[in-house]
Amino acid sequence: MISIFALTGIGEIQEKDNLAEIILSCCELKNFDVVVVTSKVVSKAEGRIVKLDQSDDKAFEKLVHSEAKRVLRKRGTLAITETRHGFICANSGIDQSNVNDGYAVLLPKDPDQSARRIHQQLENKTGLKLGVIVTDTFGRTWRNGVTDVALGCAGIAAIVDLRGTKDSAGRTLVATEIAVADEIASAAELAKPKAAGTPVVIVRGLDKRLFRRSSISGEIIRDPFEDLFR
Amino acid sequence: MISIFALTGIGEIQEKDNLAEIILSCCELKNFDVVVVTSKVVSKAEGRIVKLDQSDDKAFEKLVHSEAKRVLRKRGTLAITETRHGFICANSGIDQSNVNDGYAVLLPKDPDQSARRIHQQLENKTGLKLGVIVTDTFGRTWRNGVTDVALGCAGIAAIVDLRGTKDSAGRTLVATEIAVADEIASAAELAKPKAAGTPVVIVRGLDKRLFRRSSISGEIIRDPFEDLFR
Repeated sequence: MISIFALTGIGEIQEKDNLAEIILSCCELKNFDVVVVTSKVVSKAEGRIVKLDQSDDKAFEKLVHSEAKRVLRKRGTLAITETRHGFICANSGIDQSNVNDGYAVLLPKDPDQSARRIHQQLENKTGLKLGVIVTDTFGRTWRNGVTDVALGCAGIAAIVDLRGTKDSAGRTLVATEIAVADEIASAAELAKPKAAGTPVVIVRGLDKRLFRRSSISGEIIRDPFEDLFR
Repeated sequence: MISIFALTGIGEIQEKDNLAEIILSCCELKNFDVVVVTSKVVSKAEGRIVKLDQSDDKAFEKLVHSEAKRVLRKRGTLAITETRHGFICANSGIDQSNVNDGYAVLLPKDPDQSARRIHQQLENKTGLKLGVIVTDTFGRTWRNGVTDVALGCAGIAAIVDLRGTKDSAGRTLVATEIAVADEIASAAELAKPKAAGTPVVIVRGLDKRLFRRSSISGEIIRDPFEDLFR
């Protein structure tokens, strides 16, 4: 049985806030909990907020380009870019919602590193075995609507590799690398009261075998030479 | 608080099995439960299994093409196709795992219709308000690993549309159509013991406002003229 609940009382996050301490002040973690944190509050704590030049109506567009390795497609004000991290997403993941007018929030510089920092502090302070996932909300190439995905992770598997194991009929399974970190990110989103600002969700009861050293950059980011559509 | 658990005791599904009855014999549903069923067992119950011509080494490839509206990309034995339903996925969603050797399982003809049939029977037999989601496991264009997504739904929203609502700072949110049915499908996958054949998962405790008439074909399938990569 898996249970999922959003933390209340996190409040507005400011630069240099210690997220691990704030999270611990809002809940009683248990062994093998996964703490799912939106990249938005991680970015805020890490000071990844920039003021947009209000006199320049291309300020946002320039920022999107400056955070991108390349622009894959453009339509109107929407650019689908490849970020420096290797994520393919809208406008380099830069967001102007839930931030003061005239400001924009960039993605964390290294979301795996952010997750590792929070993870280490949480484990040190509690003595528990935990996972941490840093999430954002991305669109999908072929399907309407957005879902939450994992940008960074620590202590919890990004991918579970079932290649070589057998199905219930004894056939060897192929190509069943399950992106569990993304599934956990999506599951966590379901527990958030809509538009209510609950940036931290706990996912409890996951298979203990999922708890291991891992990273999104190492396991989820697809080599540009391997995808079929870039 | 959301809770998620896999049903045990479903057993092997055969053509003409009544999935709703089998599900009800394995659990006690509650009001506002979502019943998540893999398309594999829906296809089996609907007789969507074909015998491959063993003398034809192109039999699988021909089947993939016959189930496709068009082939978007090919690499070796992998074809990324657009199915008749409008899904973009590997090999038209045709699967040879968890089925007898020499046979292949096609996707349900109309997964929304399959979901509606199961939904109607479950609601009629229990008098409860429920949701049903029919899922499959798809790859992603830019990210390694697969996740479970919704192919069909009934009684539960495919998309929650937050356009026009306000964020915590009072700014109007744009482009926040959350694909909740896909998130529920992914969440349900997490509760399955790996490679153990548990085709039905219950997701309990979702926001009651998500329970409404909906369909994947109507809300999730993207108009081919609207995506940027086809």
